[in-house]
Amino acid sequence: MAIYNAPTQDAMFILHEVLKVHDRSDIEGYAELTDDLTGAVLEEAGKQATEVLLPINEVGDKQGCVLENGVVRTPDGYKEAYKAQCEGGWPGIDLNPEYGGQGMPYLINAVVGEFSSSAAMAFSMYQGLTHGAIKAIEGFGSDAQKDTYLPKMVSGEWTGTMNLTEPHCGTDLGLLRSKAEPQEDGSYKVSGQKIFISSGEHDMAENIVHLVLAKIPGGPEGVKGISLFVVPKFLPNEDGSLGNRNSLSCGKIEEKMGIHGNSTCVMNYDEATGWLIGDEHKGLRAMFLMMNEARLLVGMQGLSQASIAYQNAVDYARERVQGRALDGDKFPDQKADPIIVHPDVRRMLMDAKGFVEGGRAFYYWASTLIDEELHHEDEKNREKAGLLIALLTPVVKGFLTDKGFDTAVQMQQVFGGHGYTEDWSQSQYVRDARIAMIYEGANGIQALDLIGRKLPQKGGAGMQTFFGLVKDFAKENDGEEMAEFVGPVKNASKELQEAVMWFMQNGMKDPNQAAAGSTDFLYMFGHVAIAYMWAKMAKVAQEALAGNCDNPAFYEAKIKTARYYMQRVLPATTAHLARIKSGADTVMALDAEAF
Amino acid sequence: MAIYNAPTQDAMFILHEVLKVHDRSDIEGYAELTDDLTGAVLEEAGKQATEVLLPINEVGDKQGCVLENGVVRTPDGYKEAYKAQCEGGWPGIDLNPEYGGQGMPYLINAVVGEFSSSAAMAFSMYQGLTHGAIKAIEGFGSDAQKDTYLPKMVSGEWTGTMNLTEPHCGTDLGLLRSKAEPQEDGSYKVSGQKIFISSGEHDMAENIVHLVLAKIPGGPEGVKGISLFVVPKFLPNEDGSLGNRNSLSCGKIEEKMGIHGNSTCVMNYDEATGWLIGDEHKGLRAMFLMMNEARLLVGMQGLSQASIAYQNAVDYARERVQGRALDGDKFPDQKADPIIVHPDVRRMLMDAKGFVEGGRAFYYWASTLIDEELHHEDEKNREKAGLLIALLTPVVKGFLTDKGFDTAVQMQQVFGGHGYTEDWSQSQYVRDARIAMIYEGANGIQALDLIGRKLPQKGGAGMQTFFGLVKDFAKENDGEEMAEFVGPVKNASKELQEAVMWFMQNGMKDPNQAAAGSTDFLYMFGHVAIAYMWAKMAKVAQEALAGNCDNPAFYEAKIKTARYYMQRVLPATTAHLARIKSGADTVMALDAEAF
Repeated sequence: MAIYNAPTQDAMFILHEVLKVHDRSDIEGYAELTDDLTGAVLEEAGKQATEVLLPINEVGDKQGCVLENGVVRTPDGYKEAYKAQCEGGWPGIDLNPEYGGQGMPYLINAVVGEFSSSAAMAFSMYQGLTHGAIKAIEGFGSDAQKDTYLPKMVSGEWTGTMNLTEPHCGTDLGLLRSKAEPQEDGSYKVSGQKIFISSGEHDMAENIVHLVLAKIPGGPEGVKGISLFVVPKFLPNEDGSLGNRNSLSCGKIEEKMGIHGNSTCVMNYDEATGWLIGDEHKGLRAMFLMMNEARLLVGMQGLSQASIAYQNAVDYARERVQGRALDGDKFPDQKADPIIVHPDVRRMLMDAKGFVEGGRAFYYWASTLIDEELHHEDEKNREKAGLLIALLTPVVKGFLTDKGFDTAVQMQQVFGGHGYTEDWSQSQYVRDARIAMIYEGANGIQALDLIGRKLPQKGGAGMQTFFGLVKDFAKENDGEEMAEFVGPVKNASKELQEAVMWFMQNGMKDPNQAAAGSTDFLYMFGHVAIAYMWAKMAKVAQEALAGNCDNPAFYEAKIKTARYYMQRVLPATTAHLARIKSGADTVMALDAEAF
Repeated sequence: MAIYNAPTQDAMFILHEVLKVHDRSDIEGYAELTDDLTGAVLEEAGKQATEVLLPINEVGDKQGCVLENGVVRTPDGYKEAYKAQCEGGWPGIDLNPEYGGQGMPYLINAVVGEFSSSAAMAFSMYQGLTHGAIKAIEGFGSDAQKDTYLPKMVSGEWTGTMNLTEPHCGTDLGLLRSKAEPQEDGSYKVSGQKIFISSGEHDMAENIVHLVLAKIPGGPEGVKGISLFVVPKFLPNEDGSLGNRNSLSCGKIEEKMGIHGNSTCVMNYDEATGWLIGDEHKGLRAMFLMMNEARLLVGMQGLSQASIAYQNAVDYARERVQGRALDGDKFPDQKADPIIVHPDVRRMLMDAKGFVEGGRAFYYWASTLIDEELHHEDEKNREKAGLLIALLTPVVKGFLTDKGFDTAVQMQQVFGGHGYTEDWSQSQYVRDARIAMIYEGANGIQALDLIGRKLPQKGGAGMQTFFGLVKDFAKENDGEEMAEFVGPVKNASKELQEAVMWFMQNGMKDPNQAAAGSTDFLYMFGHVAIAYMWAKMAKVAQEALAGNCDNPAFYEAKIKTARYYMQRVLPATTAHLARIKSGADTVMALDAEAF
């Protein structure tokens, strides 16, 4: 019953008019990103999302995954859809051609990934996790390991997982207990229990490549003694064919609030054969490589659920007739007006539109920074982009998932009582979106990472770059036409600077002072970043309208939505700043027993 | 696995120290509310909630209700729990002794209701809807109708329902199609389909008394032609025994996101026998009587889910060890500290504590206004209280449910990945709380009711009363000791006044200008009301600490939480005011096609 139209036009606008990717020949691979090429890819990706993925989304939620005799059965249609994804080459779109990938920029994977995730989030995760595992093996594996695993994983024949969490520890990996005993042949015997392993066991691929964090006995205590192992479900033979079944198994699938189509497994490793990836005790480095990418991807998931929930709410609000417009009947010949005439329904839809389109621009921009970090011709740019994306990653993850969830909830609200039933999909979007605020580091951890690690990195270089971009943009656009956009962005950016100053003055002597404001800071940052995107989009739209554009309604809507964001959403920053400046005293005042 | 400790101590504090109910002999029935009496009742109610209701909450969610051959089977344990509730006399605690009730004030029902709803929201609804139906029959039914229905309903032997919504209309009742054809014997034949009928069919009571809105053919168009009918499942014989089965049936139970233990029914009336309640075409009056009470009750449901979610989150945060405090290990002998040491976890818990305890005071205070409206010795007071509670009702409903849901979501967040599994109950609290934002008038409708009907009522008398209370309190407490509480409340109250002025200046000529800010106004109002409650609680706590109190830790926690609310939560009002004053232009700017 749900609809989904991939936002191809919006994506093309962001890529080619706002980010002007085709002009970025300083980034390897971007010169090929002509309008024609991206247009064709996104067109196909949109079709794939609507025709192949959307139809399995609801059934995935209703049926969920079933564990029987150690085998996980995915919902009806998942196998076929997965096969179609592989045949289309989608899993490898941005991956190394050496291993069968299509070698397009990461950005393109990001855009395609948004479409897929909107259409079927739980399903898309099988592919998303494989992507991360590939990057870890490519980055840290030996040549032999790369040759063994990557071609099969890039094609999608084998999928991948990340195994971090254990029953007693998630955030605090120093506590983990899984062990890896070295064997004479250079392999390890990996033992332990891992929980919350997304895509841990399923029936869509012939092999599953588990990347597992474990400790080699005798190594350093805590996080400095963690190593990463590749532990495949079936041990590959020399010739690449599948050998023995490894001694690992799925002990349980979690019953969850949402993403029922993805099997979230308890994985038991019982002296399973594994091989070290990278150096002993340096497992976290590789895991962080996976995790940083995964965090962007999770931010996108929040956005993706807001996006499809928004589309369906707009559709419903245009169709559902109930009550009359306050300023006179809009459809006097009908018994009532569609609910989209009501200001409070508009408020919800405009909040959603402002977030979804602004968040999309933010996410695509962040994705170009990944390409710039890895593939810019100039080392200085690579470093600069690397610091900036390191800073922005927790903001993308935390802000897009918190606000993505809120947006999905509001879009469910548009449906009234119908939105609470499982006959419509709005409940599913809310339930699916909820996980994104939690996994890959709960959003509170993102906020702490932002202020504790990313903000001070290299003397605050990333933050300076961001402020510099906003300042330059404001300087270039100091005319009257852009004042309504530039003014609020400048103000909010100044408030953000004030928060940074406050942290510097107070957080040094007492880290709790900064930590108590960390989530508020993350929110402020998210708002400023999205408002900056809106200002840029308004600028482009003004220019298009001043010229000879085909589609003035599209550009006018951008300007109006930008205006809405400035006047209606951005004022939130002031309250966040007030909270930050109130410090930790009220937050930490109570004894633990007094709650 | 979930815990629930009824907040008896907190309730006693609010009733006897903040609201001083025992001193309110000007309200009929309040003189009897001694410490001893309320203490004994709340103690029993707390035990009932923890021992009888809590154990069926999770099973209710997991099993849900099942419809088979027209009969609805409630979850395991529901029947027994319902019987225990009736035997304890809980359904009739505040009802008319003439019909078997215990005749206590409405306030006591409100407090007991909070405990029950926290422990088992879906279950408590069977009783809650009966309560509303009783009030409608008592208010508008004939003596014969009262005698027939009320004794059985007050005892809980029969339950009640409200039938408003039809598939094509919920909010806009003018569109409804159900018909009632007058018969020669004075009865009516009621036909039509009603949806979303909570407790519509079940196996816990021998009869179900449906109150149904329908149109008598030939009556006025729209809402002026709606009448209310009592349509029992079994037709009562003259002697009160059950007669024939009426021609009505449950066609379906909705699959919902939450409140699985409550049967949400599609009800089909096929020339069912019914009798008019009150006057022809005046059905909405009676329905509004039910609805106003139901709206307070739904506001309480939001609060109740926040409350139990908060208790469990505190428990988890004290037990779960993960990471280290930023300002030095708190438990150096353990491998990690409990997560309650982290400022961002504290932030979530303090937000919740500030909302739950402040919202509880607000809800109890609102409930005293119901008693004052109905039972004050002086007519002027009755009118004044009536106008004030009319104004506050949409705030209680909208604010406590929106923030109650947000709070439950945050309390789920404290659990990390575990909170997303159905092994813990945090997901259930979120899913159950979600409906409260929707039913009994979606929160957008509450906001519209607030600014469009309640605010201008009698020249704004209710609003003036509220501002007067805040002003008087500020005047009485203008000393230094209370400045940190009174100052912020005064400021926020001034902002609220500014919003009222803005509506008056702009909403008259263009109602959209006011409607566009309606939800922001409702939020502002909620924050000011709760901050006012916190200031009052801080005052009482200061006095208690200055005297010879037994339990200084309790009062100190009140003061610290009040401080938190002022510094950390109340700044939200400024952003709401900015949004209100930005008006409707950006909200209404887009064509419906441009979304």
